[in-house]
Amino acid sequence: MKNNLLQNINSPSDLRLIDEAQLPEVARELRNFIIDIIAVKEGHLGASLGVVELTIALHYVFDTPNDLLVWDVGHQAYGHKILTGRRDDFHTNRQLGGISGFPKRDESIYDTFGVGHSSTSISAALGMAIASNLKGDFEKQHIAVIGDASIASGMAFEGLNHAGVTDANLLVILNDNAIGIDPSVGALKKYLTAVKEGKNPRQNNMIKSLNFDYSGPIDGHDIFAVIKELKRLQKIKGPKFLHVITTKGKGLKQAEEDQVKYHAPGKFDASTGEIYIKAEENLPPKYQDVFGLTVLDLARKNEKIIGITPAMPSGSSLNFMMKEFPKRAFDVGIAEQHAVTLAAGMATQGMIVYCNIYSTFLQRAYDQVIHDVALQNLPVIFCLDRAGLVGEDGATHHGVFDIAYLRCIPNMIVYAPRNEIELQNILYTAQLGLKHPIAIRYPRGRGVIPDWQKNYQGNYQAIEIGKSDCLKQGSKIAILSNGTIANNVTLAIAKTKNPEQLAHYDFPFVKPLDENQLHSIFKKFKTIITIEDGTVIGGFGSAILEFASTNHYSSQITTLGIPDEFIQHGNVAELQQYCKIDVKSLEILFSNF
Amino acid sequence: MKNNLLQNINSPSDLRLIDEAQLPEVARELRNFIIDIIAVKEGHLGASLGVVELTIALHYVFDTPNDLLVWDVGHQAYGHKILTGRRDDFHTNRQLGGISGFPKRDESIYDTFGVGHSSTSISAALGMAIASNLKGDFEKQHIAVIGDASIASGMAFEGLNHAGVTDANLLVILNDNAIGIDPSVGALKKYLTAVKEGKNPRQNNMIKSLNFDYSGPIDGHDIFAVIKELKRLQKIKGPKFLHVITTKGKGLKQAEEDQVKYHAPGKFDASTGEIYIKAEENLPPKYQDVFGLTVLDLARKNEKIIGITPAMPSGSSLNFMMKEFPKRAFDVGIAEQHAVTLAAGMATQGMIVYCNIYSTFLQRAYDQVIHDVALQNLPVIFCLDRAGLVGEDGATHHGVFDIAYLRCIPNMIVYAPRNEIELQNILYTAQLGLKHPIAIRYPRGRGVIPDWQKNYQGNYQAIEIGKSDCLKQGSKIAILSNGTIANNVTLAIAKTKNPEQLAHYDFPFVKPLDENQLHSIFKKFKTIITIEDGTVIGGFGSAILEFASTNHYSSQITTLGIPDEFIQHGNVAELQQYCKIDVKSLEILFSNF
Repeated sequence: MKNNLLQNINSPSDLRLIDEAQLPEVARELRNFIIDIIAVKEGHLGASLGVVELTIALHYVFDTPNDLLVWDVGHQAYGHKILTGRRDDFHTNRQLGGISGFPKRDESIYDTFGVGHSSTSISAALGMAIASNLKGDFEKQHIAVIGDASIASGMAFEGLNHAGVTDANLLVILNDNAIGIDPSVGALKKYLTAVKEGKNPRQNNMIKSLNFDYSGPIDGHDIFAVIKELKRLQKIKGPKFLHVITTKGKGLKQAEEDQVKYHAPGKFDASTGEIYIKAEENLPPKYQDVFGLTVLDLARKNEKIIGITPAMPSGSSLNFMMKEFPKRAFDVGIAEQHAVTLAAGMATQGMIVYCNIYSTFLQRAYDQVIHDVALQNLPVIFCLDRAGLVGEDGATHHGVFDIAYLRCIPNMIVYAPRNEIELQNILYTAQLGLKHPIAIRYPRGRGVIPDWQKNYQGNYQAIEIGKSDCLKQGSKIAILSNGTIANNVTLAIAKTKNPEQLAHYDFPFVKPLDENQLHSIFKKFKTIITIEDGTVIGGFGSAILEFASTNHYSSQITTLGIPDEFIQHGNVAELQQYCKIDVKSLEILFSNF
Repeated sequence: MKNNLLQNINSPSDLRLIDEAQLPEVARELRNFIIDIIAVKEGHLGASLGVVELTIALHYVFDTPNDLLVWDVGHQAYGHKILTGRRDDFHTNRQLGGISGFPKRDESIYDTFGVGHSSTSISAALGMAIASNLKGDFEKQHIAVIGDASIASGMAFEGLNHAGVTDANLLVILNDNAIGIDPSVGALKKYLTAVKEGKNPRQNNMIKSLNFDYSGPIDGHDIFAVIKELKRLQKIKGPKFLHVITTKGKGLKQAEEDQVKYHAPGKFDASTGEIYIKAEENLPPKYQDVFGLTVLDLARKNEKIIGITPAMPSGSSLNFMMKEFPKRAFDVGIAEQHAVTLAAGMATQGMIVYCNIYSTFLQRAYDQVIHDVALQNLPVIFCLDRAGLVGEDGATHHGVFDIAYLRCIPNMIVYAPRNEIELQNILYTAQLGLKHPIAIRYPRGRGVIPDWQKNYQGNYQAIEIGKSDCLKQGSKIAILSNGTIANNVTLAIAKTKNPEQLAHYDFPFVKPLDENQLHSIFKKFKTIITIEDGTVIGGFGSAILEFASTNHYSSQITTLGIPDEFIQHGNVAELQQYCKIDVKSLEILFSNF
């Protein structure tokens, strides 16, 4: 009885057989289905709850998969997945071997474009629409569903700017809930709010200025209104824009009231909405909190310190500083390019800027890192959270390319701390007067020092730039690690039969390399193993190969890291095992040398 | 007499001593000074001629260098350079050891931010303005001068979107001449044109929607009007926007009439404006024309072929295809991010997309290459013009990072042709049904086969993916080259005393590597030299080091390429010499092994 209607919907064509009057009941069932599973299996909750009606309406009105539907980012696409043949697999969401948390082309014909990073939907759908025109298909519909946080990113503007001068059969639906992961920011958000409140006499002109047929705003939870409007728009050719107002977390009281927390709440009680608080006693801190607390502390002592995050105040923990120093800590929205060059501009005026961007999202600002920061040798401090394997978010979000793409840039210092203490010390060191830009990469999740806050927080030690550490002496094989993967190495060595043969060196600096230490190592060891949680191609291991080649050393070097393929989703332990950089794999490898 | 006023202006403070009534005469002298020198020394002409009055007005009204002036791109900053102490050095513009063609921080205190790539000025100036606020300086002015082509790029929108909700003392000046290097495109351009023509009833609302104090449009060649408006704006706090209409090439008839050609016309007659046509008989073709002509030819035979350029129709020679197939070849404006994801969207529908982006500008779309193309394994064909050392444009424009930043991406094929024939053959091969995305990198300027059009054009041969070629057998040393630098190797080998010792292999594919060939080489040679015109860090040489390490080869490998520093401007031959990859340096190196 519970999913009376939903249980019979195995594809959108089943949905289309249902009487329109019954769709609110489908919405109720779909919403509860999402809540029940995410409560137990975890995942992104609020965004999908907010578009339940819109999702049903889209598949009801349009002829998917013939009509092409692109979800921006994809956090909101759970309803879409459930209605398009993945209802019974939905409980495997984000698990190793299960379905992806994001739309993904090789998972379903209904997933027309793989997403994860924001603001790609307009460009992708426009490309599809132009292709349809060229193939002589003028009836096919192409729909991009994009949130108000994502549409403020420059890439979305580029897509709109192009689409507006085409005759492409493109419908852009703005899902306006005034929030991304954190509340939306910026002038466009302010403008949209005014439009919604009917306060703006120039209402809607911005989109019309870009040559779009604008309609809305309409209530995105009134499924009949949405269907009616979609049917009307279906008949209009050319670029169209529909402004839909929704509430993130709709239908779960707590999720509506605390939208940031319920973006991805972890496990919760499906009936009450209450989040299960894990017993956190004696857990090490999250690296993001080590960043957030340390930068806050440093900012208290040095008024030149500024913090910048592109739309990740809670994810980066920059919100600590934003709360205490609102004039010195900036959420600039999903605008990585702007974030980096803004930081560069500030740095020209002597400010010390911590620019915190997830490793995978710094890819969005690669040119700005090269052209605006490194070329001018401005000492911007890039803090790359979520570096390495990120786990359940999967292939779109792993931060595994950063070492390779940053190491080739002149002037850059590239650093990965081994633990919480190193992270806070490099953050401290970075504001002592660096002569170069620095990228500090650290992983998602928790560190390894449970009593960090009690015993180490604030006990700063300056770090010598380029310095490595010998963590363990050994007689036969030298293991050189970069970053937190060092902890796997330590554990693995302890488990081998002949640990005395294994030396372990921590090279937090990929650049500059500790050449003195390397000369000693290469003179002593014939067998060297490098390990990192970045791509083996072009990464830390390659830096060691380059050093050896330049200096004519002939030691045998084995490089471990992320292989040359996109790594799927799963928990970090599982993915490390897949990449053979988990403790067990290392133990076996070390024992066999 | 000729430069009566200009010859006494050694800094803006000298300018400010001149009576306002005499400024049109200063403008006349400045314009002629630019024309006279660029006519002989070459450089970017049209953009600087267009802003002569604006440049004078800015330095006349504002207290530079205390007030901070940021020029977007910088093609238009010649007048600025001449007025800020570089008049007598201006004849060294773009030459090795001379002044840079772009504003550059270490060249002058008046160059507040180094530029070259577009659309950075708003973010940079906003960063400066926020820093001033934090330092308690509320009087300082921060001015970004940005063209209508650059402001349509997503990054500029991100800057405006942030600036609009700050109280930063920022003045954005839109220098609207309806053209970048090629005529501007897109919905925003259409909107601006309507505003200019007074046709738009919603005039100016777009910028006002972003919370800016908008004024204009005003005539940018009426120096008194510009000064008056700047003085008015000087007194207004917060973000301000001034729309100025100018004519690119103003004051030189031919430059006004053919703005594309006179963007950077080469040598011309300063009095008549006539461009000196070089005798081009028997010169090899430009690589860009090999691309443009080949893609046009392929497009005639295969209707699935599409071409995309972000704002470089003439620079890439995609304009050949745009002319014949306007519906299948797209200039999307300065929107590299959109260009790449648009291509990905088209590729999902089975189109074969040649996405032509200068190597240095693909840095702007790095995430889109990874996330939207490679992750989905869509066979988009990236054509990277201006790869390697580009010469006089200098550090901002060298395309030297691409091998390193592309090679670490799974699924990517990375290819560099040795000559015109290889370039056309890989372009042909790419539309035969590639299973992966491919990046084809080739240099600025001319190839090496004068009779290419006559004897080779259109004689297509499919290239086997991953295949290398032995260009020359040898007994002692194997030289492995990638791309057109192979031609230097061939010439250098011919000049050595014992060429019979030198084997030469062309590895056009950096990825996938020709492992069979490499096994043979490593089994035969104890000494191996790699050479490329990309960064030695992480590049082709590193790929060879990785292969050797993985396969336990112990040959001595020397990697040649671009060293770990930003390479300045000069002609390509001079810069190759600096990097020791010119023929002479190679000859000496080869002779000494």
